[in-house]
Amino acid sequence: MSPAAERVMARADALAAVSETPDALTRVYLSAQHLQANQLVGQWMCQAGMTVWQDSVGNICGRYEGAQEGAQAVLLGSHLDTVRNAGRYDGMLGVLTAIEVVDSLHQQDIRLAQAIEIVGFCDEEGTRFGITLLGSRGLTGTWPATWLEKCDASGISVAQAMVLAGLDPARVALAARDKDDFSAYLELHIEQGPCLEQENLALGVVEAINGARRLQCRFTGEAGHAGTVPMTHRKDALASAAEWMVRIETTTRQAGGNLVATVGELQCLPGAVNVIPGEVTLSLDIRGPQDAPLDALLNALQAQAQAIATRRGLSFHAEEFYRIAATPCDVRLQALLGEAVESVQSRTLSLPSGAGHDAIAMAERWPVGMLFVRCRGGVSHHPAESVMAEDVALAIEAFRRAAIGLASTERS
Amino acid sequence: MSPAAERVMARADALAAVSETPDALTRVYLSAQHLQANQLVGQWMCQAGMTVWQDSVGNICGRYEGAQEGAQAVLLGSHLDTVRNAGRYDGMLGVLTAIEVVDSLHQQDIRLAQAIEIVGFCDEEGTRFGITLLGSRGLTGTWPATWLEKCDASGISVAQAMVLAGLDPARVALAARDKDDFSAYLELHIEQGPCLEQENLALGVVEAINGARRLQCRFTGEAGHAGTVPMTHRKDALASAAEWMVRIETTTRQAGGNLVATVGELQCLPGAVNVIPGEVTLSLDIRGPQDAPLDALLNALQAQAQAIATRRGLSFHAEEFYRIAATPCDVRLQALLGEAVESVQSRTLSLPSGAGHDAIAMAERWPVGMLFVRCRGGVSHHPAESVMAEDVALAIEAFRRAAIGLASTERS
Repeated sequence: MSPAAERVMARADALAAVSETPDALTRVYLSAQHLQANQLVGQWMCQAGMTVWQDSVGNICGRYEGAQEGAQAVLLGSHLDTVRNAGRYDGMLGVLTAIEVVDSLHQQDIRLAQAIEIVGFCDEEGTRFGITLLGSRGLTGTWPATWLEKCDASGISVAQAMVLAGLDPARVALAARDKDDFSAYLELHIEQGPCLEQENLALGVVEAINGARRLQCRFTGEAGHAGTVPMTHRKDALASAAEWMVRIETTTRQAGGNLVATVGELQCLPGAVNVIPGEVTLSLDIRGPQDAPLDALLNALQAQAQAIATRRGLSFHAEEFYRIAATPCDVRLQALLGEAVESVQSRTLSLPSGAGHDAIAMAERWPVGMLFVRCRGGVSHHPAESVMAEDVALAIEAFRRAAIGLASTERS
Repeated sequence: MSPAAERVMARADALAAVSETPDALTRVYLSAQHLQANQLVGQWMCQAGMTVWQDSVGNICGRYEGAQEGAQAVLLGSHLDTVRNAGRYDGMLGVLTAIEVVDSLHQQDIRLAQAIEIVGFCDEEGTRFGITLLGSRGLTGTWPATWLEKCDASGISVAQAMVLAGLDPARVALAARDKDDFSAYLELHIEQGPCLEQENLALGVVEAINGARRLQCRFTGEAGHAGTVPMTHRKDALASAAEWMVRIETTTRQAGGNLVATVGELQCLPGAVNVIPGEVTLSLDIRGPQDAPLDALLNALQAQAQAIATRRGLSFHAEEFYRIAATPCDVRLQALLGEAVESVQSRTLSLPSGAGHDAIAMAERWPVGMLFVRCRGGVSHHPAESVMAEDVALAIEAFRRAAIGLASTERS
C-alpha cells in the first residue's frame, strides 16, 4: 500500500470527524467546522512545503513556488464543504490527493517551471444558503451582489455569517484571481456514478460536466369511469404519459453521446383506482456533455409528446424551469490526464460528469481538466460513499504525473 | 313529445328536490329524504293502478295484478338512493319509466298473464354505510348478519337508523321474496358511459355487468442520481412501469371482448426531479363481461410485468385486493330487449355495464335483463348527469314492449 494513499484515507477520516453532528457528516459554509477543516488542511499544506492562506471568501489556499518566484501556477483543488449526512470523499479527496502531489515534489525538493497551488473551496454544495459554487466564484470574481443577503434556515445572512467567521463581506472581491495567475485548473473527484466500477477501472477522464434542462410537463385528457369507458374512447393522461416515457427512454438511448433523461416525479389526477386519469404532471430532466445534442434531444422529446397527445386527443404542455450549459473540459488537459491514467492502469475512459463541480465556475476563466476516481456502487451524498485505497494510490500517481507534466513547462 | 316521457322528466326533477342539501342532490338510505322519496314514488305507483307497500328493509314496492290474482310477476326496478352530489337519473330513471309501463296498461285496463311489480330499491350506492346493494339483497334475502351493525360517519348503525325510520331490524328477512314470485327482473338504467352516444343510439342492451379485479402493484428498482447513472445502467422503476402501462393498454385493446384496464393511481419514489425512481406503486383495475377472458388478461398482464422487471433487473410484486365476478344477463331477456330496442330505433347494440347495479344481486335468484339509455358525455355521479326526453320516450316504449311481451305469457 502506498503511504500517500494511506495518508489520504486517514486524513479523509480525520476531516469526516469535523462535523456539526457526531454521527452524520455535515460541514457547511462559514460554520465552526468549516474553519476547523481549513485549519487542518492548511496544516497539511504547510507540511507539504506550501505557503498557506485563507482567502477573503473562506477558501483555504496553498502555494508551492516554482523555479522562479511568482511563476504562473497550475491550480489543483476541490471543495471541503458537504451536503447533510454526507460521504467523506466528495470534494475532500481532490484536495487531499493534491497535497500528496505537492508533497512528492517537496520531499525531493523539486521546483518546476510553474508553481502549484491548491485550493480547498469553501462552498460548492450550497447546503447552507441554497446558492452553489461560492468558493470557486470567489476565485473567478463573479459573486452576484445579492449573495451577501442570502439567508440560511435560521435567518442568518451570508454577510452576517462571514463576520461571525472572521471574514469581511466588503472584501469578497479580493478573492478573485487574475486570469494569468493560473495556466490550468485540475480537479480530482469521485465519480458519484457507476461507470468506472462497471468498466472495472479505477480512473477516468471527464470530457465535460453535463449541461442540463429541466421541464415540468403536463398531459391533460379526460377523467372517466374505469368501468364504463371503452379502451377506444379514452383520453387517458397516464397512458399517454407512459407512451411518452417509453419514447423518452428509447430515444435517449438511441441518441447515445452520454445523454441521459429521467422522469423523476409524476403525479396522476384524480388518482383513484377506479378513475381514468384525466391529468398527469411529470418532470423531465435531461443532461449531456454537449449543448447541441442536448437541445436536439429536448426538441425531439417535446415533439414526441405533442404527437402522442394529438393522436390521442389530449393536450400537452411543457415549461422549462432550469437550464445549465454544458462545461466542456479542455481538450489538451483531457489528453494529458488520459496519458497519465494510461500510465497507471490498462486503459483510460472518457466519461461525462453528471454532477456539478467547482470546475463549472473555474472553466469560465481557466482551462479545466477533471480526473474521476471510482466509488463503490456509484453512491455519493450518503454516508456509504466509499473509495478503495488502491484506487486512491493510482489516482495520486496519475494526478501527480498530469500536474507535474503540466507544471514542468511554462504555459505554451 | 310523449306525455309519458315528459312526466318522467318532471318526476325526476321532483325527486331531485328531495335532497339533504338544497344545491347538491344527496339522498341516502334511511334518511328523511329516503322516506319522502318512497312516499312520492308510492303515490305515483298508486296513480298507475298499483297496490303499494314499503318492505321491511325500506324498498318501495308496487304490484299491478295479472289476469289471475297471485300470478307470477315480471319485476321492474332500480334504486332511489344516490351518491353525494349526484345526478338525478342514476337509478330513478328505471323506477319512473317502469311506472309509465304499468300506467300504459292501467289506462287501458289491460291485465296480462303475469302481474307486473315495480321496486324502488332503498340503497344500491352504499353512500351512507359503505355497503352496497342493501335493497336488492333484501329481496334476495342475503343480508349478512353483520350489516345491521355497520355504522355511518356519525356512528349510527343500520339497525338504529332503521328504528329511527320506523323499520324493525328484526324483520329484515321478511323482505325476501320467493324464487317463484318473479319470472324475471328487468332494469332500465342510464349507461353512465359514452358508448351509446358515440354510436349515436338512444338505447342498448346490456350483455353482462362487468366482473372486476383490482391489484396493488409495485416495481422495485434502484434510485440513483439523474446525472451520473448512464441509461444502460439504470434500474428505473418508473421507466419499467411505463413500459408495462403501454403493454397493459395494447394487450387489453388486442384482447377485445369489451375488456378494459385502467391504471388510476401511481406513486413514484423518492419523487424528485433529479433522482431516478427506485420504487413505483400503481393500481391496476381490469373489468370485463366474462370472467374467463378477464382472468386470462390478468394473468397475461402480470406475466408481462414480471418479464419487464426481470429483463431490467428489477422486482415486481402484485396483490389482488378486490374481485367481483361478472354477472351475465339472461340470454332470452337480452334477445327480448334487443327486439324491443330494434322496434324503436334503427338497430340495437349489445354492451357491457362497467358500473354495478341492483341486477348483480337479483341475478343470484332470477333471470335479469338490463336496458341502457344514452346519457350526455357518459357523465354520471355528477350534477351534470343528463338524458334527453326524446331518448326517454324511446326507452319507455322499448321497456314497455319488452315487459308486456314477457308478462303476456305465463313463464315457459
